Amino acid sequence: MASISKVTVVGTGVLGSQIAFQTAYSGFEVSVYDIDAAAIGRARQRLDGLADTYEQEVAGADGDKLHAALARIAFHTDLGAAVADADLVIEAIPEVLELKRKTYVRLGQLAPEKTIFATNSSTLLPSAMKDATGRSDRFLALHFANEIWKYNTAEVMGTEDTDSKVFDALVGFAVAIGMVPIPVRKEKAGYVLNSLLVPLLNAAAELAAGGYADPHDVDKVWRIATGAPMGPFQIYDVIGLSTPYNILVQGNEHAQKLAAWLKANYLDQGKLGVASGEGFYVYRPVA
Amino acid sequence: MASISKVTVVGTGVLGSQIAFQTAYSGFEVSVYDIDAAAIGRARQRLDGLADTYEQEVAGADGDKLHAALARIAFHTDLGAAVADADLVIEAIPEVLELKRKTYVRLGQLAPEKTIFATNSSTLLPSAMKDATGRSDRFLALHFANEIWKYNTAEVMGTEDTDSKVFDALVGFAVAIGMVPIPVRKEKAGYVLNSLLVPLLNAAAELAAGGYADPHDVDKVWRIATGAPMGPFQIYDVIGLSTPYNILVQGNEHAQKLAAWLKANYLDQGKLGVASGEGFYVYRPVA
Repeated sequence: MASISKVTVVGTGVLGSQIAFQTAYSGFEVSVYDIDAAAIGRARQRLDGLADTYEQEVAGADGDKLHAALARIAFHTDLGAAVADADLVIEAIPEVLELKRKTYVRLGQLAPEKTIFATNSSTLLPSAMKDATGRSDRFLALHFANEIWKYNTAEVMGTEDTDSKVFDALVGFAVAIGMVPIPVRKEKAGYVLNSLLVPLLNAAAELAAGGYADPHDVDKVWRIATGAPMGPFQIYDVIGLSTPYNILVQGNEHAQKLAAWLKANYLDQGKLGVASGEGFYVYRPVA
Repeated sequence: MASISKVTVVGTGVLGSQIAFQTAYSGFEVSVYDIDAAAIGRARQRLDGLADTYEQEVAGADGDKLHAALARIAFHTDLGAAVADADLVIEAIPEVLELKRKTYVRLGQLAPEKTIFATNSSTLLPSAMKDATGRSDRFLALHFANEIWKYNTAEVMGTEDTDSKVFDALVGFAVAIGMVPIPVRKEKAGYVLNSLLVPLLNAAAELAAGGYADPHDVDKVWRIATGAPMGPFQIYDVIGLSTPYNILVQGNEHAQKLAAWLKANYLDQGKLGVASGEGFYVYRPVA
């Protein structure tokens, strides 16, 4: 397997931009693609903002390194040009299966034979997209967390078709860009992290919705007993309550009861979490 | 409700001794009861050992304070004498329902009318014992964690019969002995902490037993993503693998599969967790 040196990031939203910047910061040549000049303009702003954030939050990130990182990023609105010499394409476009499949059909036509395709999808399984590239042996998921420079995990998850050398190459790439690789050996919705987090968050909701204990008390005992900095309801607030709600409401009858409780007591009152200023906790003075 | 000043701890095992010492250290007069002179001898050793531990681990715990704490503890092998003037009896005897019920029948006969009865049971519900005292309105659970001086939570959980003033008095008592009280408003097996921990630990076992991810990788992503000092498999090792095994093996078919995996890969190989030197991690050099 030839080593990975040229990386294309398709989609320059919050996470796409972070992936592109972290990859360039780690010394790789990066091409970013988005659909039009306006999107690319926003991408440039995001990347400049990330350089500022790294300067404040990442040890050793000085001006020289950050300028060099930005200089390693090329911008494209032509997908063919963006992937013309890509060793690896990381896709971070919206979580809409048909959109992703259409993009992979085009990528399969445009990318050279050597290209590895990695989706950052959180909620869609790679097996739902793999055939669209026409090269499912070179297709897998590479899942990053938001604020990649702090939460530096990369879950690597293939399908039954993924070539083991491709899998291993991606594990190596994850390390090369400063990530802690988490190999997921069989396809699993939610990867590792959400497979752990969802049951914990559901159990917490059950305690509060069932009238057993107050959210703040639930968090207290969790923090003290496990040494964790945040209890489950603090995690809800950081994630934002809409995402767990959307998952619960699609679940079984019991999950839907928890969803209804979240909706009535929090969402319907505008308590969406940290981003809205209040969730299970208040994050700014009430006006 | 008269305030609590005299406390009797029935049972002087690991946790009973810790409860007695922490209560005495907080300024309360404490009587401890155990079945014979040999058990009381072991209790004295445990309490002396706790004084040493507090000196090393608890800020401000100097020799004077620790001697004063020990001096506030009286030892009894006569249950009637132990509870003769008790405002509160905290029971921490083995987790055998019939043994606890028999003890509560005797306590109901021997203790004065004012006494509140609190069980530290982890696995038995207070409603399974409440009638044995003959005073179920004054009966509830007060659940401590091991290493009470570090993990200072006290889950307070009544039954339908528990007088709300008794519940509130116990919350106040928990605060008075330096605990963070966690009121559990409806009876729940596992209280709050284990209601959260068990789903997390089960989800982790499922990832490893199902061949999705290695235990160490599961722990890594959990630590990085949540900021927790320990991942679920490190928690397994601290708890000891036998306890989760015993819970899983009594569960449904799926839980029993996880139990079988734990048994075959860990328990049967003597990997019981930190206490045995190895579990999911190795804790001492292999000979």
